[in-house]
Amino acid sequence: MATVPLGRYLWERIHQCGINHIFGVPGDFNLTLLDHIYDVDGLEWVGNTNELNSAYAADGYARVRNNAGCLVTTHGVGEMSAVNGVAGAMTEQVKVIHVVGQTSRAMQKNRMMIHHSIGFSPDHHIFNKASKGFRCAEAELQSEEGATEEIDRVLRECFVNSRPVYIFLPIDLVDLHVPAKALETPLDLEPKADTKSVDEASAAILDALYNSKQPALFVDCLVQRHNAISEIRQLADKLAIPIYASNMGKGIVDETHQHYVGVYNGQPSGTGVQSAFEASDLVLVVGNLPSDTNSGGFTRRIPTEKAVAINAEDVSVRGGKPYANAPIKAVLGKLLEQLSTDKVPNCSKPKLPETPPEDDADSKIITQSWIWDRLAQFFQPRDVVIGETGTASFGIPDATFPADTTWITQTYYGSIGYATPAAFGSAVALADPTTARGGRTVLVTGDGSLMLTVQEVGNMVKHRLNPILFVINNAGYTIERVIHGAHQSYNDIVPFDYSHMLQFFSVPAAEAKAQFHRAETKAELEAVLGLERVRVPTAVQIVEVVMDKMDVPWRLSTQVATRGPEAVKEMREAGFKVREMQKQEAYWT
Amino acid sequence: MATVPLGRYLWERIHQCGINHIFGVPGDFNLTLLDHIYDVDGLEWVGNTNELNSAYAADGYARVRNNAGCLVTTHGVGEMSAVNGVAGAMTEQVKVIHVVGQTSRAMQKNRMMIHHSIGFSPDHHIFNKASKGFRCAEAELQSEEGATEEIDRVLRECFVNSRPVYIFLPIDLVDLHVPAKALETPLDLEPKADTKSVDEASAAILDALYNSKQPALFVDCLVQRHNAISEIRQLADKLAIPIYASNMGKGIVDETHQHYVGVYNGQPSGTGVQSAFEASDLVLVVGNLPSDTNSGGFTRRIPTEKAVAINAEDVSVRGGKPYANAPIKAVLGKLLEQLSTDKVPNCSKPKLPETPPEDDADSKIITQSWIWDRLAQFFQPRDVVIGETGTASFGIPDATFPADTTWITQTYYGSIGYATPAAFGSAVALADPTTARGGRTVLVTGDGSLMLTVQEVGNMVKHRLNPILFVINNAGYTIERVIHGAHQSYNDIVPFDYSHMLQFFSVPAAEAKAQFHRAETKAELEAVLGLERVRVPTAVQIVEVVMDKMDVPWRLSTQVATRGPEAVKEMREAGFKVREMQKQEAYWT
Repeated sequence: MATVPLGRYLWERIHQCGINHIFGVPGDFNLTLLDHIYDVDGLEWVGNTNELNSAYAADGYARVRNNAGCLVTTHGVGEMSAVNGVAGAMTEQVKVIHVVGQTSRAMQKNRMMIHHSIGFSPDHHIFNKASKGFRCAEAELQSEEGATEEIDRVLRECFVNSRPVYIFLPIDLVDLHVPAKALETPLDLEPKADTKSVDEASAAILDALYNSKQPALFVDCLVQRHNAISEIRQLADKLAIPIYASNMGKGIVDETHQHYVGVYNGQPSGTGVQSAFEASDLVLVVGNLPSDTNSGGFTRRIPTEKAVAINAEDVSVRGGKPYANAPIKAVLGKLLEQLSTDKVPNCSKPKLPETPPEDDADSKIITQSWIWDRLAQFFQPRDVVIGETGTASFGIPDATFPADTTWITQTYYGSIGYATPAAFGSAVALADPTTARGGRTVLVTGDGSLMLTVQEVGNMVKHRLNPILFVINNAGYTIERVIHGAHQSYNDIVPFDYSHMLQFFSVPAAEAKAQFHRAETKAELEAVLGLERVRVPTAVQIVEVVMDKMDVPWRLSTQVATRGPEAVKEMREAGFKVREMQKQEAYWT
Repeated sequence: MATVPLGRYLWERIHQCGINHIFGVPGDFNLTLLDHIYDVDGLEWVGNTNELNSAYAADGYARVRNNAGCLVTTHGVGEMSAVNGVAGAMTEQVKVIHVVGQTSRAMQKNRMMIHHSIGFSPDHHIFNKASKGFRCAEAELQSEEGATEEIDRVLRECFVNSRPVYIFLPIDLVDLHVPAKALETPLDLEPKADTKSVDEASAAILDALYNSKQPALFVDCLVQRHNAISEIRQLADKLAIPIYASNMGKGIVDETHQHYVGVYNGQPSGTGVQSAFEASDLVLVVGNLPSDTNSGGFTRRIPTEKAVAINAEDVSVRGGKPYANAPIKAVLGKLLEQLSTDKVPNCSKPKLPETPPEDDADSKIITQSWIWDRLAQFFQPRDVVIGETGTASFGIPDATFPADTTWITQTYYGSIGYATPAAFGSAVALADPTTARGGRTVLVTGDGSLMLTVQEVGNMVKHRLNPILFVINNAGYTIERVIHGAHQSYNDIVPFDYSHMLQFFSVPAAEAKAQFHRAETKAELEAVLGLERVRVPTAVQIVEVVMDKMDVPWRLSTQVATRGPEAVKEMREAGFKVREMQKQEAYWT
């Protein structure tokens, strides 16, 4: 073919970048564009139950595949419904391509009052402007001339920056023909590195490392985002120094690694982890994303003079002038090449003190101090574990993951509702034989969060996917209760009867019964976790886990406590146990 | 009290403006602000299942009460999830107050990486900027000094312009004290009129009217938005000339009015309506909102030289220079004062030809040509009828409403998913004894739209509300099918089993069974509509109405047909009946 319709070009190119599924919701300004998806071999349309869910699903899909996700929405109503999900991808540096089917150029030019527009004599580009802060690049197509170059440019930007891009495509451009020639050459999606800068950075890092006494490696989530998992794993093996992860960076280096110590998160760290970490005299901080929720409320102590910051795009050694244009993947690659392992100080893994057993260890009901370690035993190598913002995202860091676990959490953006559609995106990815990854999708969410986006569970049923959904039923927004308003009605939610969820989503009665599980006690949860159909699911499994609404993970109460004595007093008066705090080296004592 | 906390001031003022319920979702930057709601007598917190639903609910609440609605969300994640609903209120000119609980001023100033922010060194105001196009005013509070004046200013703007406003309130300002004195004087919420302009406009309108031969009154939705329903009804009585409504303006003047002719919507108008309307030599066009979907795809013919445009804020007679600052309510009031009824031409109501019976009149299954008139008989005076974008919004114009019907439809913005949370907002309003309005909330939605926001049905259950929900189950996006891709899989949806919906939302089995109804045939629907518990509901009633996925309201196929012969051919080939078109005076024949 010398030419192809522009719509076809777009999808061919997106598929070439490694995307096999397009999420989204149809609307009358994208229907003809959707037609072209069906023309691309190996590309599949996956509709969602609403646009916000599309964005979340594309984000989850991108993370699982260490690639990008794509959603299509329609002019105005669709794109604006999705924007919060794209904003999350922006701040968490996830590759999301948002294609918007727009009104025709004539409608735009004549400012016609077409449905989905704003006001009299409407500016049809008002929506493009609204989402401007949530993307790193955009193609606002207005002509078939140059359109393919524009598409290619922004797709590259998406991968290079690991952030969302937008492609705005007026409906009258979809079927215009454009040259197909460019499709013969796949896009270069690697960031441009300054070789000299990378070399110098690598030399400076090694110099600092060789001259240190007690170095450590601290791995954070941007390693995953910028596609350097393989490099960091090799480096961890070669370095043989103590390894720590952030809340968000768990699982990037296997937690079964012989040098892995634990999650360092400032004050809310496991017993002894903080002291061990802070005794290091040099830390290779790789892919750092230091938001409050990923740093124990800013209580991480990594003094600049001890830090080698290997950031997404540059490097700085002990606070020195940054080595610019030194992408993380290139730098890690260079370190692997240059490293003399015999020059690395011999530095054994610190021995952590035993964690004393909890007061409520004998409790029959399911407690926050018990469940995470128990779930850890349920997880299997290659699982995708998705923890919703809330007690799950603060509890799961207590679970030591098996090898090759992919950990998905939106800890910085923290938009509740994210995790369920992200789990759908993950399950779509795992079901794709070309993903060649194995593993299960395991979602741990709460009743308060599930409520926001629950309809996407129906999509899991429709597509015959088999994720395992743990739903913590603790009667509302427990994460909010511990922050403020423990007994206020605004922290109550709409109660769902989860035993009817699957039937509502059209699972026949007998199957629905077999796929639904409810545990009020540890013994009941043990029994559920032992079921073959839960461990090796062939269809969606729902596990409702009933917990006390005033029980919170110690990491969460400890982080709240970093706000000061007043916050501690408020928690105690409200009836929270805040029981683990005495085990921490927290500044309020 | 000489002073009050700023949070308290805000809620007292909002309640003074006539708002009794605050919608929203809690988040850690609005929790302390929500506390103050409980301090205001007569003001109630109503949480939603997600933020988009909050915005839709506030919009529905505002419309039913001919006042404003209010929602509260949290920084970033909350406000961005709601923005599409606020954009809808913007273009449909609905009074919505969006209060956002923000990060503290110190966090903003120091650009701290607080959860919900975007990127490194984040600009916390990035979200304020994103929603800029979807509001008429905003208060970006940064100090307790002058904060009350700012709040008062934007509340006034909301009412005067009948459009959304934003109030951004950093969390550290919530409990600072501000002078309470202003609360002694309620805000003036009326738009400022230029008396001279209003007088002149009124005189010019009357002059044109007295000199016409066959005048008509055309009523559109902005009459309702700008609070002039009482005036237009009185004027309609006094004028005694033929009355027409737009799709969106139905019910503003009673359709039982002796001079009411029907819905004029250009080509997609009922039998004879278009000819009758277009024979007028002068039309008082009141509160016009001429979007494609509200004007039969721009086929309304109201030539400027025949039109007296009484717009929201100005008046133009036969295309003459506008009389500025002449608000619709003031102008209609002045006309009422000045009108000499004996000078109005005597002009009898046109007799419309009988609509020939449909081919499928004897069909046992439920058809688009049958259902709307049948539902009309079910409607009662004072009902709120909510028609979702889709076959419902195009079908319901065929239903002649009883007196005092409030008709809610988002015909211009057309965001599917709107109607269900709007129905929740309506039901909350009707359950408020101070609304003193009576009537039922009757929602007519489709399976494709319900899917997007279905969780809000759970909120109806939680609050023990009693709306009647008709759900057209036609296996997907039928409105999209007729536009394009009739048999494409992207127009399929996730199938729900509605018989399990209420139990999923925690209604006990016996009640859930009694509250759920399903009709596949006309006879079955007749039986359901005759049930006492459906006619006079004391709890949510779900009526699933099964219809053919290739059956569409004639108004919809006719509007699609205005796109030209190709569209007609495509519809026919796809298998749509497009059966009523031959009865229209359509240009493609």
